[in-house]
Amino acid sequence: MKKSAAIERHLQWRGKIETGVRADVSSNEALALAYTPGVAEPCLEIQKDVSKSFLLTRRWNTVAVVTDGTAVLGLGDIGPEAAMPVMEGKAALFKYFGDVDAVPLCIRSKDVDEIVRTIALLAGNFGGINLEDISAPRCFEIEAKLKQLCDIPIFHDDQHGTAIVALAGLENAMKVCKKDKGVARIIISGAGAAGCAIAELLLADGYKDVTLLNSRGIIHKDDEYSSERLTALAGKTNISGLRGGLDAAIKDADVFLGVSAPGILTAEMVKTMAADAIVFAMANPTPEIMPDLAQAAGARIVATGRSDFANQINNLLAFPGMFRGALDAGATDFTPEMNIAASKAISSMVSENELCEQYIIPSALDRNVPMAVAKAVEAAWRK
Amino acid sequence: MKKSAAIERHLQWRGKIETGVRADVSSNEALALAYTPGVAEPCLEIQKDVSKSFLLTRRWNTVAVVTDGTAVLGLGDIGPEAAMPVMEGKAALFKYFGDVDAVPLCIRSKDVDEIVRTIALLAGNFGGINLEDISAPRCFEIEAKLKQLCDIPIFHDDQHGTAIVALAGLENAMKVCKKDKGVARIIISGAGAAGCAIAELLLADGYKDVTLLNSRGIIHKDDEYSSERLTALAGKTNISGLRGGLDAAIKDADVFLGVSAPGILTAEMVKTMAADAIVFAMANPTPEIMPDLAQAAGARIVATGRSDFANQINNLLAFPGMFRGALDAGATDFTPEMNIAASKAISSMVSENELCEQYIIPSALDRNVPMAVAKAVEAAWRK
Repeated sequence: MKKSAAIERHLQWRGKIETGVRADVSSNEALALAYTPGVAEPCLEIQKDVSKSFLLTRRWNTVAVVTDGTAVLGLGDIGPEAAMPVMEGKAALFKYFGDVDAVPLCIRSKDVDEIVRTIALLAGNFGGINLEDISAPRCFEIEAKLKQLCDIPIFHDDQHGTAIVALAGLENAMKVCKKDKGVARIIISGAGAAGCAIAELLLADGYKDVTLLNSRGIIHKDDEYSSERLTALAGKTNISGLRGGLDAAIKDADVFLGVSAPGILTAEMVKTMAADAIVFAMANPTPEIMPDLAQAAGARIVATGRSDFANQINNLLAFPGMFRGALDAGATDFTPEMNIAASKAISSMVSENELCEQYIIPSALDRNVPMAVAKAVEAAWRK
Repeated sequence: MKKSAAIERHLQWRGKIETGVRADVSSNEALALAYTPGVAEPCLEIQKDVSKSFLLTRRWNTVAVVTDGTAVLGLGDIGPEAAMPVMEGKAALFKYFGDVDAVPLCIRSKDVDEIVRTIALLAGNFGGINLEDISAPRCFEIEAKLKQLCDIPIFHDDQHGTAIVALAGLENAMKVCKKDKGVARIIISGAGAAGCAIAELLLADGYKDVTLLNSRGIIHKDDEYSSERLTALAGKTNISGLRGGLDAAIKDADVFLGVSAPGILTAEMVKTMAADAIVFAMANPTPEIMPDLAQAAGARIVATGRSDFANQINNLLAFPGMFRGALDAGATDFTPEMNIAASKAISSMVSENELCEQYIIPSALDRNVPMAVAKAVEAAWRK
C-alpha cells in the first residue's frame, strides 16, 4: 500500500467515526432503565405513536449518508466499499459542524429501484437522508422516488448543496460588481446533477437570463433531451436562443459558473465576457480556469472549489446546517424555499464591511455558518 | 406519555448512542487528509482490493444490529420504530462492554427475502451482523440465508447468545453437583429460537441425553415438524423415546433449562427431579419457577435471567466478546467451535475457590468477561 500522509492517517484512524455512548450502562440499576426491563416502556410508547420515535430515540438527530459508490469525488464508479472513506469523512463533518449523527450506508447495488427500496425500508431509523456521490441521471430518479416514498427529508448534496453555496457566493459577487440578477447573463457549464440544480435554484431566486451547457453545447428548447429535467430546463433557460459551444455562450456573459471539466474556460473566452466578469470555476480539484489566468483576462471576481485560493465554494457551508435546521424543525421535506433561505444565510455571514473581490463567501471552517443556516432553514420550513 | 423513570431518562437522552468523531476535521490541513483531496487515496486503495476496507475504514470494528421488530423482548411484534430503544441499548452495550461500534438498523418489512436482500446489500459497511428480536421461524431462515450470502459473520443473539451463556452456567453447575454430561438427563422447555440453539450447543459439547419440549409436549423422532431444524433435533434428542408433557419429561431429570413461559415449572415437578437438581428458569421477566420455590422443592442450583437473583444467565456475557473476537480475528463466520470456546471462557471466569451454588456464572457487568470471550473466540477461529 502506498504510504502517503493521507494513507498513513487513515491506517492510524481505522475509521473516522465511532459509536459514542450517551446512556449509563455500567450498573444493574442503570441497565434496568437503559435496557431491560425499563426499555420496554419507551418501546410501547412508540408502538402506540410512531412519531414518538423522534422523542425517545436518536432518530430526531440521525441522518443516513447513502451512496452506491458510482460517482465518488472525481474518481467515478469505484464501488460501495471504496466510497466509505468519503462517507465516513462526511459523517465526521456532519457531527463536527452540525452536531448531526450520521450513519454511512454504502449499498451494493446500482439498480435504482433496489436502492430506493433499501433506503425506504430503513427510513424509520432516520430523521433525514443525505444522498451522496450517485451517478446522474440515476441520482435524480432515486431522489424523486424517495421524496415520494419517505416521510423524512431527502437531500442530494451533490446537487443542492453545491447550488446553495454557489448561489450564496454569487449573491455577494453580484453585490460587489453591482450587477442586477434581473438582467445579468449567467452561463452554467455542466448540465449534470450540480449544473441542473444551480440553474433551477437561480431561476427560483429571480435570475432571468440563465444559459446551460453540456459537453455537446448550449441547451436549447428546440433540442431533445433524454432527461425530463433537462427538457424542463431547456424551456426556461437560454432566453436569447443561443446556439453553439462555450465560446459562443460566454460572449458578453456577466457570470460563468463551472461545474464541468478542468481547463475548459480559456483566457480568450474570459476576455470576451462583460465588464466586471464573475467566474466561479468549481471543477475539483482542477478548476475550469486557474484564478490568476482568469483575473489576468479581466475577471473581477474568481471563486473555485479549493481551499488554497480565495472564495472557496464548499458544500460544507450548507449540508450540516441544512440538516440541523430540518431536524430541529421536524421537517418532512427540503423545499426550494429552504434552499434559498440557506443560501441567503450563508451570504449574510459576510458583512458589508468585509465584502470585497477576495471575500465573497465565509470560510468553510466557520462554525457560525451552519448555525445561521440551521436557523434560516428551520424558519423557512415553519413558514 | 406516561412518565416512569425509564421514560424520563429516555426523554432526557433522546438517544442512547451518538456519533463520535475520531478524525480531526477542524482545519484546512486536517480536512485535506480526512476529506478532499486526501481521502481519494484510501478510496483508490480499497477499489483495488476491497479487503482494505477493513484497514482504512471503521468496517473492521462495526456491526449492524438488525431487527424487523417482530419479537421484541416479551412484547412481540411492535414494529421497527418501536424496537429502536432496544437496539440503541444493545449498541450502547456493544460499545461499553466490547468496544464494538454498532449501528442499529430496524427494517420496515416482515418478508424474509426482502430483509435478507436489504442486509446483504449493506454487508460491505460492516464487519459482522447481529440479528435481534426477529420472530421464529423467520429468524432461522434469515440467519441461514445470510450465512450463505455474506462474507462476514452473522450472529442471532436470541439463539446463540442465550445458548452460549446457558451452557457456561450449566458447565459450572454440573461441576458443583458432580454430574457427568455423558449421562445427565437434560430437559429443555421451549423449542423456539433459544431452545433449539441450546439443544444443538449442548449436543455439540458432548451432552448425550437432551430432551426438548414445545407447548404441545416432548419432541419425538416419530412426530412430524414443520421446521427442518426441529425435525433434525427430534432425531438427536429424547434418546429414551419419552412421550407426554413437562410432568413426564421432568421425572428423574438432572437439569431443567427453561426458555419458555412464566410459572410453568411447579414445585411438584421439581420434587420428582433427580438429586442435586439444576434448574435454569430463564423466561423473562417472570421465570418458569421462582428461585425460592424451586429451592424449597429440592433444586440445588437455580439460575434465572434476572439480575435481582443469584446466577443471572444474561446474553450480555456473550455478544460483546463474541463480536470483539470475531472482528479481531477477521472471521467470516461464527462456528459452533467459537460458540463453545466462548462458553468455556465465561465459565472459567468463576474460579474454583468462588464456585458454589450461588455463584456459577460471572456478573454480567464484569468487563473482564468479554475480553476473555474475545480471546477464546479469536483463537477458536484461527484454529
